[in-house]
Amino acid sequence: MLDYNALLAQYETIKAKGKKLDMSRGKPSPEQLGTMSRILTVVTHNDQCFSETGTDCRNYGGLEGINEMRRLFGNLMGVSMEQVIVGGNSSLNMMFDVLARAMLHGVKEGCKPWCKYDQISFLCPVPGYDRHFAMCEFFGINMINVPLLKDGPDMDLVEKLVSEDETIKGIWCVPKYANPTGTTYSDEVVRRFAQLKPAAKDFRVFWDNAYIVHDLTDTPDQLLNIFEEAEKYGNDDLFLEFMSTSKISYSGAGISCMASSRNNINRILQEMKFQTIGHDKLNQLRHSKVFRTVDDVKAQMQVHRSIIAPKFYLLYRVFEEELGPLENVQWTKPNGGYFICMTLPNGTAKRVEELAAGAGLVLTKAGAPFPYGKDPNDNVLRIAPTYPSLNELAEAAPLLCCCIKLAICEREQIAQK
Amino acid sequence: MLDYNALLAQYETIKAKGKKLDMSRGKPSPEQLGTMSRILTVVTHNDQCFSETGTDCRNYGGLEGINEMRRLFGNLMGVSMEQVIVGGNSSLNMMFDVLARAMLHGVKEGCKPWCKYDQISFLCPVPGYDRHFAMCEFFGINMINVPLLKDGPDMDLVEKLVSEDETIKGIWCVPKYANPTGTTYSDEVVRRFAQLKPAAKDFRVFWDNAYIVHDLTDTPDQLLNIFEEAEKYGNDDLFLEFMSTSKISYSGAGISCMASSRNNINRILQEMKFQTIGHDKLNQLRHSKVFRTVDDVKAQMQVHRSIIAPKFYLLYRVFEEELGPLENVQWTKPNGGYFICMTLPNGTAKRVEELAAGAGLVLTKAGAPFPYGKDPNDNVLRIAPTYPSLNELAEAAPLLCCCIKLAICEREQIAQK
Repeated sequence: MLDYNALLAQYETIKAKGKKLDMSRGKPSPEQLGTMSRILTVVTHNDQCFSETGTDCRNYGGLEGINEMRRLFGNLMGVSMEQVIVGGNSSLNMMFDVLARAMLHGVKEGCKPWCKYDQISFLCPVPGYDRHFAMCEFFGINMINVPLLKDGPDMDLVEKLVSEDETIKGIWCVPKYANPTGTTYSDEVVRRFAQLKPAAKDFRVFWDNAYIVHDLTDTPDQLLNIFEEAEKYGNDDLFLEFMSTSKISYSGAGISCMASSRNNINRILQEMKFQTIGHDKLNQLRHSKVFRTVDDVKAQMQVHRSIIAPKFYLLYRVFEEELGPLENVQWTKPNGGYFICMTLPNGTAKRVEELAAGAGLVLTKAGAPFPYGKDPNDNVLRIAPTYPSLNELAEAAPLLCCCIKLAICEREQIAQK
Repeated sequence: MLDYNALLAQYETIKAKGKKLDMSRGKPSPEQLGTMSRILTVVTHNDQCFSETGTDCRNYGGLEGINEMRRLFGNLMGVSMEQVIVGGNSSLNMMFDVLARAMLHGVKEGCKPWCKYDQISFLCPVPGYDRHFAMCEFFGINMINVPLLKDGPDMDLVEKLVSEDETIKGIWCVPKYANPTGTTYSDEVVRRFAQLKPAAKDFRVFWDNAYIVHDLTDTPDQLLNIFEEAEKYGNDDLFLEFMSTSKISYSGAGISCMASSRNNINRILQEMKFQTIGHDKLNQLRHSKVFRTVDDVKAQMQVHRSIIAPKFYLLYRVFEEELGPLENVQWTKPNGGYFICMTLPNGTAKRVEELAAGAGLVLTKAGAPFPYGKDPNDNVLRIAPTYPSLNELAEAAPLLCCCIKLAICEREQIAQK
């Protein structure tokens, strides 16, 4: 049984300390960023500024990116380098640009621009990534919630909806260590995606593999290669895969990429040439010199893990102590990614956010993991443990638990009235 | 009188050498790029990765760019830093994005998206920049040619057209050292732009100040500050100014920016946040440390001038010797920028391009400086002297002159038949 007055006293005591803590975004910590300083000095002379094919990375050109990075990303995703376009520092920007071109030009020959429809829709597995949903909102794309189950989106529902309605043009997927639940799609789910038969000829799966190498345990999740599966059914045009080094090297100064079928890549390059002469190849070159192979990337991810994993474990321990006895409070323990997802009693998430903010702890906006920011049950919290230090987390975790318990008390009091 | 057979023999002799020469694009030479190596080592330690406000340039955030670069670009353009958004490595990409947002969302409250019109048009001063025109083509924007006179676009025509037709939504301007003519807009032209009264409430002037500091002589052209003028008439929302360091630091790894009224900048930032979390701040930081002041930029431009100007002078000398006596052959001698624009007898430009290509010299596609690649008189050649070395230019220039004379001969022969 929770003691409201004791909790309130504890809350006021913590609040009085006037701390400022931030667990709102999936940002790497300064300590993580500090592990990449070698990239700052890997290109420091004029004669190091050339790619393996002799391209001067300081000059114009190279729309598709330098070979080294196309190959590395290809190897990471399990596709050929010809299926890869290397972008700027933001995979989100690449997704946005794909959407913008689809709106204005359509995604393939013979299909009209999406902006010419009265209404189009995307399926949104929930809880999901707020910035995906925000893009749909920006483009005026209607969003349809699909439950994200333990092994991926509810595929019965996905298959039903996309086969029936040709105004459903896409689906957002974070197939590995999904934001915020940590879910990795099972082999069966990936295979069902690979065989999808959408009514819309211009349906596209946005396969945002943001956490492709971002393991946190010795038993990492395994994700099937979507292109290998889709090619079996001649279905590879359906998929647009994205990843970046934002959480491998630098979140603000990394390299993004996308992969797709050769058909799609050729079309996209044809359209991209109107937009830019090419992205920053010098930063691509820096990355290719630090990350010569997939193993180099994996070694760096071990370093990140050694910094991040203890933060997750600290939270698990505090949550277990403080919240373990409570009914209807669960949290994920993902094998990778950047988030813990907490499920609370209905109608308390927003109040937890408010209480935490009142005491100086910024959480991700309750509702953010849902289209239009509307959590139908107001019971999901996305917790981002990576940015604060262990010391800060050790202060933030009890405060968060206190806020959760307070919110539950308040709700019980209202229910009793 | 030109001697066709002698010219043909000369042409064949040069062709037989099998040289490969490229004067097609306005690219800096390796020698120019080599002058910037200090930027490669200006940020080499973790503790150097912070902006003046303490922002960690390696991490997420900073949609509008770091203060240092906003201030520098503001000082270069003569606007406040709050009027500046710093972008990625390509100002072309910023223009494209502005157009894409205008197509999908319109440019201001209460104005419909441009894609909702059956047809919209842009005015295109000609000759002009091929990539501007290509963007219009990509977006399906109709292009209307406007003559570029000695002091800027034909403003009588511009004023007439924009005041009569509200489906004319924009105009492309390169107000200083225009590509390819080297024209700088006179004070009167700038003032007439500042007072423009378009019928369309959502008309925009794309003021691509690509060559803002790119002087080549001791008597550089002076361009009025468009925002200072436009503000006098409350007309500053009309203007979107762009520039970049592509031809100051590195063409492939520089920093771009745009400036506009506070109204426009606020709206654009609101929309940009759906597209990206922020551009590469680490490269912004590198630039801000190398270019602390406008004077630092000017000093670097002197270095570029010392490399580029001799290439222009070499061409002037050869042109004078070889083409001076010919009627109807003129070329510009700009005070800055990256191009010489040659006017030939009607109906010969494409043939010159073919002849040059046949002998291994790649020129900019004849017609490129015009919308849809159509030079109505087939008489304009854009010559890009910067990329080849002086030695290569010394070979290319006589070949170019030979091709011009041959094409003129061929045309006279046809006329005589």
